[in-house]
Amino acid sequence: MLQSQLFTETTKEAPRDEKSLNAKLLIRAGFVHKEMAGVYSYLPLGLLVLRKIQDIIREEMEKIGGQEILMSVFQPKDLWLKTDRWSKGIGKDMFKCKLNGSEVGLGPTHEEIVTRILKSYLSSYRDLPKSVFQIQTKFRKELRAKSGLLRGREFDMKDLYSFHSSEEDFEKYYKIVIKSYHKVLGRCGLRAILTEASGKGFTSSTPHEFQVIAPAGEDTIFYCLGGDFSQNKEVAKVKAGDKCPICQKTLIEEKSIEVGNIFPLGIKYSEALGAYFTDKDGKKKPITMGCYGLGPSRIMGAAVEIHHDSKGIIWPGEIAPFQVHLIQLQENPEIKKKSREIYDTLLKTGIEVLYDDRDGKSPGEKFADADLIGIPWRIVVSERTLEKDSVELKRRDKEEIKLVKTKELQTFFKS
Amino acid sequence: MLQSQLFTETTKEAPRDEKSLNAKLLIRAGFVHKEMAGVYSYLPLGLLVLRKIQDIIREEMEKIGGQEILMSVFQPKDLWLKTDRWSKGIGKDMFKCKLNGSEVGLGPTHEEIVTRILKSYLSSYRDLPKSVFQIQTKFRKELRAKSGLLRGREFDMKDLYSFHSSEEDFEKYYKIVIKSYHKVLGRCGLRAILTEASGKGFTSSTPHEFQVIAPAGEDTIFYCLGGDFSQNKEVAKVKAGDKCPICQKTLIEEKSIEVGNIFPLGIKYSEALGAYFTDKDGKKKPITMGCYGLGPSRIMGAAVEIHHDSKGIIWPGEIAPFQVHLIQLQENPEIKKKSREIYDTLLKTGIEVLYDDRDGKSPGEKFADADLIGIPWRIVVSERTLEKDSVELKRRDKEEIKLVKTKELQTFFKS
Repeated sequence: MLQSQLFTETTKEAPRDEKSLNAKLLIRAGFVHKEMAGVYSYLPLGLLVLRKIQDIIREEMEKIGGQEILMSVFQPKDLWLKTDRWSKGIGKDMFKCKLNGSEVGLGPTHEEIVTRILKSYLSSYRDLPKSVFQIQTKFRKELRAKSGLLRGREFDMKDLYSFHSSEEDFEKYYKIVIKSYHKVLGRCGLRAILTEASGKGFTSSTPHEFQVIAPAGEDTIFYCLGGDFSQNKEVAKVKAGDKCPICQKTLIEEKSIEVGNIFPLGIKYSEALGAYFTDKDGKKKPITMGCYGLGPSRIMGAAVEIHHDSKGIIWPGEIAPFQVHLIQLQENPEIKKKSREIYDTLLKTGIEVLYDDRDGKSPGEKFADADLIGIPWRIVVSERTLEKDSVELKRRDKEEIKLVKTKELQTFFKS
Repeated sequence: MLQSQLFTETTKEAPRDEKSLNAKLLIRAGFVHKEMAGVYSYLPLGLLVLRKIQDIIREEMEKIGGQEILMSVFQPKDLWLKTDRWSKGIGKDMFKCKLNGSEVGLGPTHEEIVTRILKSYLSSYRDLPKSVFQIQTKFRKELRAKSGLLRGREFDMKDLYSFHSSEEDFEKYYKIVIKSYHKVLGRCGLRAILTEASGKGFTSSTPHEFQVIAPAGEDTIFYCLGGDFSQNKEVAKVKAGDKCPICQKTLIEEKSIEVGNIFPLGIKYSEALGAYFTDKDGKKKPITMGCYGLGPSRIMGAAVEIHHDSKGIIWPGEIAPFQVHLIQLQENPEIKKKSREIYDTLLKTGIEVLYDDRDGKSPGEKFADADLIGIPWRIVVSERTLEKDSVELKRRDKEEIKLVKTKELQTFFKS
């Protein structure tokens, strides 16, 4: 993409009421625009990142058998009354609108809707197991929303729901999802700690969270470096300094970010909404369910919290808006021509390039913008490099600058 | 995709309260699920169609310089008060939720938000023109929603906004968008009539609609077959039987579907929200704007209204969920093996295939399902066809059945 065409520009200042580091950097670099507390619009660069995260999630969910659907945002009141959640639990945090003398809710989660849809199609043990997922804008009435993309009133969510004929079958799938979530988060540049969220011990019949250690996190967890144990402080029966009950190492306390969570739902929703199947023995039984959430917008915020320095963002490769930031340093025609040639060659090689072809910007401004935006590779074309038929190549996360022959660039990025 | 894995199935009946033809067919074929009046969830097949429509729109909008963004659903009240729309005009149809003692709206359109975003970045005539678009779930308080996907309370919308330094520059772009919209709709299998929506005559300074003739449409238009003239009845100064003021042919009256609309916004929003730029002459001027809507979910409904027969849907090629419906007619191992081979070969050729590998279904049931689902090409593998090393090939919209040698299939679909 030609940077001269991009309508956004970087800014020196974030809005004064913005306290969160991820939002400040994302706003200053032109990735998002703040509409109100906890509500952001995605600008071209931000939407590219969000899509890459969504695509990674989509790919991994399909690998574990998830079929993608898109459920309604609107939640019928009568359905939520059946599960007794309209005014209780998460229903208390649900935004509600008036419609024809009644009310509709804005989905913060979709157990009711998904159970009603699937029960039309699942009637026999032969139809099970099945799992479906969606990637969707969700809404939640947060009274205070001050952590940028980490806790939105409007946010992006992937929710997967699984349907099983037995608790054992569910437990098998639960473990598959845990593995898949670690893979998704790893591809997004995050190392997450699987954390108990119930205090009942480490079994598949209790909920778990995926926690990423970062100062901006709103959660506190106790965990052991060996990776054997992690508990959310809210439910913990241990404290910092205690020994890990498994490996005996000392437990560490850390303010962390919950980027995903997984819940055994048992038969709560299938019983309340009448989702039964006929088992091999001819008996009617309620379907056993699981629910698995992962927040693309929250992952984007967490990636910025973890991967940045004093100059700006440092995007992990797979979720960067572009792979290469190509900078034409001076405005002379020879440099413009050569930069354009390199741009075209890289595009042809399948490399995603943001090409800083802007006139009227000093080298200092261009470097500062590149550091703030945070694309993994920077290529600089200047009078000095062209004298040696070369370009300057630098990784965003390293100090070292290499001179690389222009004709070798294509081969370099191919490998 | 293996049809045995798909969690949806076709049904003989649509919900009793569903009156609309498009929704009845889409529900029966397993494309959508009705959650309440005017609110549908997209099941795997339906989401495939919706995505294809979105991708066509995205591609064409990028061709005319649109930069994709994703704005917030939530609309701040103070912003809509500035344009005097919170309780007037479209604001009356806006769903509203309570938040911290105030209210937020759910976006039925985004002029306010987009103008506030863009004004941060557009300050000089050098920054203009620019155009941005989003594809998003939108909300509108329809008191009666009874036309299926044609008029939803929750619906999918592409909205493009353009920003110009002069009325002339806007008018040039307006014509470019008209051409682009015809192309999008053509690719989606719809022939639309550009229709005046203001009664002020055919100029770029009045709004226009893209109308598709169909009995289910909620609009009435007068138009001439020559394509020179079309007016919405709501604003028309003509009546059926009048002569076309341009070509003198007799005007026809028709109940049609509005699938898109385009509006000159002038400087209404830029003045109200302070979106000014400095022109070549050094003077500060308000930015001239245009707004262009196109409904992917409504296009999906309209395509079904136009393209169906008594047996089911007949998808236009580019928006069909799959290109080929491969049917393994009997359950013997030889047929299963051969069908699987054909499936793999077609996939390798880049053809999208729904493979009916289901056991326990009669040939009659499989044919009826294929007709209802409406994939453009049907391939049948049976004992009879395999005797001749062939398959049966049939287009959904034709009666003719051809016998084609199995080894020629790949070449056939490549061309």
